[in-house]
Amino acid sequence: MPLLKGQRFKCYNHGMLSEKMLAVFEKECRLEKIKKTLVGVSGGPDSLCLSDILYNSGYPVIIAHFNHRLRADSDEDARKVMHFANERNLPFVIGQGDVAETARAEKLSLEEAARKERYHFLFDQARVYEAQAVVVAHNAEDQVETVLMHFLRGAGLAGLKGMSIRTLSTEWNAEIPLVRPFLGIWRAEILEYIQEKKLDPVYDSSNQDTTFFRNRLRHDLIPYLTAYNPQVKEVIRRMSANLSGDFAIVEEAIEESWNKCITSIGPGFAAFSIPILQKMGRGYQRGILRKAVTCLRPNLRDIDFDVIEKGADFVQNPTRTGRIDLASHLKLFIEGKAIYLADENYEIPTSIWPQISTGEEIPLPKSGRVELGSSWSVEVEEFSLKDLSGEPWKEKNIQEAWVNARTVTGTLCLRTSRRGDRFQPFGMAGRSTLLSDFWINTHIPRRARRDWPLVCCSEGNSIVWVPGLRLAEPFRVTQDTSQVVHLTLYCGSLTGKLV
Amino acid sequence: MPLLKGQRFKCYNHGMLSEKMLAVFEKECRLEKIKKTLVGVSGGPDSLCLSDILYNSGYPVIIAHFNHRLRADSDEDARKVMHFANERNLPFVIGQGDVAETARAEKLSLEEAARKERYHFLFDQARVYEAQAVVVAHNAEDQVETVLMHFLRGAGLAGLKGMSIRTLSTEWNAEIPLVRPFLGIWRAEILEYIQEKKLDPVYDSSNQDTTFFRNRLRHDLIPYLTAYNPQVKEVIRRMSANLSGDFAIVEEAIEESWNKCITSIGPGFAAFSIPILQKMGRGYQRGILRKAVTCLRPNLRDIDFDVIEKGADFVQNPTRTGRIDLASHLKLFIEGKAIYLADENYEIPTSIWPQISTGEEIPLPKSGRVELGSSWSVEVEEFSLKDLSGEPWKEKNIQEAWVNARTVTGTLCLRTSRRGDRFQPFGMAGRSTLLSDFWINTHIPRRARRDWPLVCCSEGNSIVWVPGLRLAEPFRVTQDTSQVVHLTLYCGSLTGKLV
Repeated sequence: MPLLKGQRFKCYNHGMLSEKMLAVFEKECRLEKIKKTLVGVSGGPDSLCLSDILYNSGYPVIIAHFNHRLRADSDEDARKVMHFANERNLPFVIGQGDVAETARAEKLSLEEAARKERYHFLFDQARVYEAQAVVVAHNAEDQVETVLMHFLRGAGLAGLKGMSIRTLSTEWNAEIPLVRPFLGIWRAEILEYIQEKKLDPVYDSSNQDTTFFRNRLRHDLIPYLTAYNPQVKEVIRRMSANLSGDFAIVEEAIEESWNKCITSIGPGFAAFSIPILQKMGRGYQRGILRKAVTCLRPNLRDIDFDVIEKGADFVQNPTRTGRIDLASHLKLFIEGKAIYLADENYEIPTSIWPQISTGEEIPLPKSGRVELGSSWSVEVEEFSLKDLSGEPWKEKNIQEAWVNARTVTGTLCLRTSRRGDRFQPFGMAGRSTLLSDFWINTHIPRRARRDWPLVCCSEGNSIVWVPGLRLAEPFRVTQDTSQVVHLTLYCGSLTGKLV
Repeated sequence: MPLLKGQRFKCYNHGMLSEKMLAVFEKECRLEKIKKTLVGVSGGPDSLCLSDILYNSGYPVIIAHFNHRLRADSDEDARKVMHFANERNLPFVIGQGDVAETARAEKLSLEEAARKERYHFLFDQARVYEAQAVVVAHNAEDQVETVLMHFLRGAGLAGLKGMSIRTLSTEWNAEIPLVRPFLGIWRAEILEYIQEKKLDPVYDSSNQDTTFFRNRLRHDLIPYLTAYNPQVKEVIRRMSANLSGDFAIVEEAIEESWNKCITSIGPGFAAFSIPILQKMGRGYQRGILRKAVTCLRPNLRDIDFDVIEKGADFVQNPTRTGRIDLASHLKLFIEGKAIYLADENYEIPTSIWPQISTGEEIPLPKSGRVELGSSWSVEVEEFSLKDLSGEPWKEKNIQEAWVNARTVTGTLCLRTSRRGDRFQPFGMAGRSTLLSDFWINTHIPRRARRDWPLVCCSEGNSIVWVPGLRLAEPFRVTQDTSQVVHLTLYCGSLTGKLV
């Protein structure tokens, strides 16, 4: 095997390649000899060599071949692979699918369709045979081409790091990893092994597994770049190895930051604390947005740079009323202290707030609980002050109110706000303000204000308590209070602070 | 200005460029209008355009020009820049140096020497004029070329992220940042501004500021890559912007991990906890090693990938006796539970351990302290057991020993170990073992064992106590003990555990 100009690597004999692979199988791929290993074998030199080394190293190999049926001689390829398996007495599974039909039906390129069908088959079989991993034979050249392809098409760290030597992808199977032991091995070393061991691989003249773009990279761009740096392939391989490590660090850091700033997540939305998110660097903001888009659109393969930039700009300078549309029918908007990424038709349910129907007036009992709907309720109790131990009304707990019973005119009732409603917040000296002004200083979003329940006097209609937020000053417990009404806002059995 | 084939960008009129730059100056460059700003001006379109916009936006600009004297018309360039400054009534400083001579003397390429002299001049002037920053006019094309150059030569995240819009470099000045507001601006937009404002830039035909390699990239590689993706320049610019954010995350994470695993650092060495370092991912190990090399070799500009890989392999599988040589006369070796990166002639000082001269025999007083050198000392006290409160000998404190006085034959003295010394460690039943076997189970490095002080009996020579490590079983306090000798090992005024 002559060396290509500019290539530099040590030539090992096959013994040394096998030996070198032992450590890779064990440490980097984490393959165990007591478990079955399913190898995807096209019949080409790479997969044949890898299967042979795995087999000779004592791994219980299952040979899996997918017949794409894209070439006339594909049946011949399948027979060759079967022969390889039979010679070694290895289990052999074969699958086939109408790739052309899948491509048509799912509007994929032939290559995408082939990839999809092939991996589905491999992981299906791995599951059936309880294999510890699906092993494929991508080599260092494939890695370099992948990195270059990502580089030219535009990619972040995730793309520039190239393929991973061991990875779990929910796209295929959340428990069975995809393993690529040959990522650090150059093609020449594989061909040398094939020759020395007199293996008989399939040489696919049409190269149907690789796109036109990849072929151009291999036969045109890489030789061209070699003129700039004879070591360019090795340089790119190292770069991808380095970036893999950095990628793992970034992923971990983003995960940690995500947990720090996420306030809630559910079907169709994710919400983050604006102040916490804003304090983070641009890289974190981008990473968290990207992760959020991935959560909401798990099948989206490429997230556009501009989308994330637009999102990060909005995080930095959000407008309270504004919302921006991101890709894939996602919107970004503010509510309270949170920024939401959500489906474009997602509405934050008002059931997260206490709400009653507008116009309704609900009398409160002397003692008992009134259900407001959506798990919310208000409880009323009346006490003689002398029966209470301590001075509980002095505790800061906005979920409860202690009302001086004597100040209530008529009885207590619940209603929603009316035009011109006034309110004198507890602790505020002087006269009352417009209820609409009071709302502004709360974190309650506009859309929840209209149907917010207010505790009022049935006569005179004064607002006694805005549940969950503030008691009115004139109704507070004073030194000469003898009888108190205790009001509590619940959601389910909770009386915690509103978020 | 005709668009080059494959280039895509919006064409702004100069009003829009100025406007766009306002936010960049303020937010990304963090330039303040109340402080002076020094701009490095070659006289080319980029630096002239940048100076003009800064000046028109109300920044107090100082125009600084460095005359490289590499071309015949360099004096003419200087005059043009001076004219530009005079027209606007701006302070103008000029510097010059014999770049060719510097290159010869310091064995640098002409370009490296020019860069060095130029930046030294700019930062010197910035310091003198108390400028808030040195501003230079690298544009988006420069950024793309820089990234490509790093990509082809092999680079990690630090290189692939390209130049930073604002950076502090200890290479020039630890307090004055280098700022590059034009990194996101394409050349065409700058040339358009120059044309509309009828500025008169220098067009350097020899392009002495750029290397041959960079010129090849500009005129050959980039047009070639454009055939693969017409957007390739924009794609690379975005990539570098993205990677900048990721780089910041990685730097922060490495800093945090560094603090978790470093055990000591001083001139010529840095030491890290092996178990902590080993638990970290490969990316962290690489990052910490790279940072350690940078600490010990601040002037090293490129750290070879292989060096770091070799180091990380050693971290993962260190040999106790082995050491490996890294680049730049650095060695990596193990001592105790720490891995050291150090100058190749660095010796860990034995003064971190208690040591006495071999052969010496030091009598211990009945009561008092014996200095061992290097701040180490041993203190002796004698008590009647009935004068002690509690049972202090039952406390686990290996810095102290409580000896049953009756078991001591003769008096106590200090000496170093002798061939065949035996020792029965406290708590170990049966007979004594060789002292040399005892050492093996300690974390004390071999080189510190020879001169380790041992407390012995002057008659019979039995070892009573290995200070800092273990009392001998026969000398322990028992039920029938009446008189005790209390021994304490100090370093300075400390009696803490040996590390």
